[in-house]
Amino acid sequence: MKPDDIIYLDYAAATPLSDAALAAMQPYFSQRFYNPSSLYAPAVQVRRDYEAAKHHIAMAIGARADDCIITAGATESINLALSAARGGHVVTTAIEHHAVLCAARRYPHTTVPVGSSGIVSPDVVAAAIQPSTRVISAALANNELGTIQPLRRLAAIVKTERQRRRAAGESTPLWLHCDGSQGIGQIDVNVARLGVDMLTINAGKCYGPKQVGLLWRQSDVVLQPQIVGGGQEQGMRSGTENVAGVIGFAAALDEAVRQRASEASRLRDLRDLLQTQLQSKCKQLTITITKKRLPGSLHVYVAGVDAERLIYRLETCGVLLATGSACAARSASRSHVLTAIGLADEAIDGSLRLTLGRCTSRPDVERAAELIAQAINDELARSAS
Amino acid sequence: MKPDDIIYLDYAAATPLSDAALAAMQPYFSQRFYNPSSLYAPAVQVRRDYEAAKHHIAMAIGARADDCIITAGATESINLALSAARGGHVVTTAIEHHAVLCAARRYPHTTVPVGSSGIVSPDVVAAAIQPSTRVISAALANNELGTIQPLRRLAAIVKTERQRRRAAGESTPLWLHCDGSQGIGQIDVNVARLGVDMLTINAGKCYGPKQVGLLWRQSDVVLQPQIVGGGQEQGMRSGTENVAGVIGFAAALDEAVRQRASEASRLRDLRDLLQTQLQSKCKQLTITITKKRLPGSLHVYVAGVDAERLIYRLETCGVLLATGSACAARSASRSHVLTAIGLADEAIDGSLRLTLGRCTSRPDVERAAELIAQAINDELARSAS
Repeated sequence: MKPDDIIYLDYAAATPLSDAALAAMQPYFSQRFYNPSSLYAPAVQVRRDYEAAKHHIAMAIGARADDCIITAGATESINLALSAARGGHVVTTAIEHHAVLCAARRYPHTTVPVGSSGIVSPDVVAAAIQPSTRVISAALANNELGTIQPLRRLAAIVKTERQRRRAAGESTPLWLHCDGSQGIGQIDVNVARLGVDMLTINAGKCYGPKQVGLLWRQSDVVLQPQIVGGGQEQGMRSGTENVAGVIGFAAALDEAVRQRASEASRLRDLRDLLQTQLQSKCKQLTITITKKRLPGSLHVYVAGVDAERLIYRLETCGVLLATGSACAARSASRSHVLTAIGLADEAIDGSLRLTLGRCTSRPDVERAAELIAQAINDELARSAS
Repeated sequence: MKPDDIIYLDYAAATPLSDAALAAMQPYFSQRFYNPSSLYAPAVQVRRDYEAAKHHIAMAIGARADDCIITAGATESINLALSAARGGHVVTTAIEHHAVLCAARRYPHTTVPVGSSGIVSPDVVAAAIQPSTRVISAALANNELGTIQPLRRLAAIVKTERQRRRAAGESTPLWLHCDGSQGIGQIDVNVARLGVDMLTINAGKCYGPKQVGLLWRQSDVVLQPQIVGGGQEQGMRSGTENVAGVIGFAAALDEAVRQRASEASRLRDLRDLLQTQLQSKCKQLTITITKKRLPGSLHVYVAGVDAERLIYRLETCGVLLATGSACAARSASRSHVLTAIGLADEAIDGSLRLTLGRCTSRPDVERAAELIAQAINDELARSAS
């Protein structure tokens, strides 16, 4: 099946590499392949290109390149960010990605509950802060629900707690880490405007190459390098630099940021159309989240339907969508995010995550709505019979 | 300057991506871009392709795919391998790559000396083993000198020590890790024939994509995952799989293994020609290592010449070579490898690492010998005047 025949509605799991990003990378595969640490001029030029690309990535999030560490993806960035908690405590939320939850388990930690809105309450986070808390970690947008978290309000809480500590003569630092993997192409991601101290982003979720990530941190954040050796990335992450990957990341991010406003508006319209059509064609369908979502995100459920069967049924018509996050899809356990927001097991088992992206067109949405509704209604009829 | 005009003699620092590897990767950038953990058929096919590529990589080193962990490069693999030392002691050698030396520093460790041959003595390693030693780490081939290390004899020592521990009722395990980053395209790298318990290899050094590595380990080796999250790579290394990278790695490795015998012989002839011509044209030049080298490796020095000046001089004629390892090149400190084998400072400062590879031709070698000898003789005349 050619991808042209496919209606892909799982952009939260993976995005295709954009033509611009691939074109930018191409010369660095076989021509400008030099090790950027070598001394001769063509390698020095490769280093300059790498540094320029890093500078572009930094600019896209309103940061300085010196404060950025290139990693092999969001999971590595998150693990590195949470290393700032060493000797202290972590506060995170029940709807974070597995990378955050697993990395947090390495430290004394508190996982705060999240209500049915899928949005973390700043007051609940504030109440979980202990004198030993060093890191608070929250996603910019949830990877299953698409809910946008109140990072600025979390930043205000961090500021207040810092003031309290300073006044009390306590020296434990407190840093706010944001996992911005989802949303970078759809909403504003600027470190100053978010008010965060650390930010993770990921090329593979914004039409860049897989296995390239970034951790930005304020210069005062103390990290424990996980991978030591040649001393690349200011000693914070050793290993020969992924030149082609970073060049591709910069090109993809540049494109995503330039198109963001128009793309967000286009995706919002398409998402709303999809939602309206699904609701009209399928009365048993519930929209899980209606407020503060990423423009391209739609999460729905139909209690009593087996969502996995729907996925398999729809793939034969060329419609690709997800029951939940891709990482969790293969674990055969119920989504911790949906459990956390209090969905009943029957609703979780009937959940669909629909995420739209750059190649989603209006005809795609209309056809997808038709096919998804039909599949749901067929499944409902089957289970009723 | 077009790379066609360049005589590249720094294959130990970086290799270009082969056409076969790039062609294999290409469909996975923008077409088969799916997250291999997703449920729908096209993603399941991507997972199968990924698993098949991993199987091919495993086969190339005589291993089972289940015992292989894909990483973002040799440095990460090495750090992960040395995590098997947790709670115990590491033995390594003074000529290892910085990644090994830095990772070893995280544990109680002994760094054994290496003599002027650039080859570690198994007896010296044996003498350094303590009852608490859990990991011995040695490179297959040294990245500066190209010297091939006696891994089979180190494996025999490990076996003897294991027998002693068993007889003494001691339960501390002992594992031999080999950093095989250098040499995979030039000499046999088979885990059973080497007799090692862990092996690191790296796509970026054998005409595959950068930022893809492998750690193979016997199934009884206990590792501490560095990057946790979605549980990929059997929980040993989380993060969305680098599908294109692994497909490219498999294609590159397949090509390298198929061509190995003929390429090794071709490179040996060219290297010997380069050595002979340099010696005949430049009387003050010393061959640092003459025995047990990788076929494509030539290390020389001219005491009293500034090798960095030579690099810059030769780059203007299109000849690219190194003073030492690329990682160390920018640190402005003397090579720890050359210091370890007892070279005088003057010899170290006049050292050149010449590494030949797939695109090196006989005319390249003849022209390079001419230009290098001329540059050396000019520099000698300059410093004499």
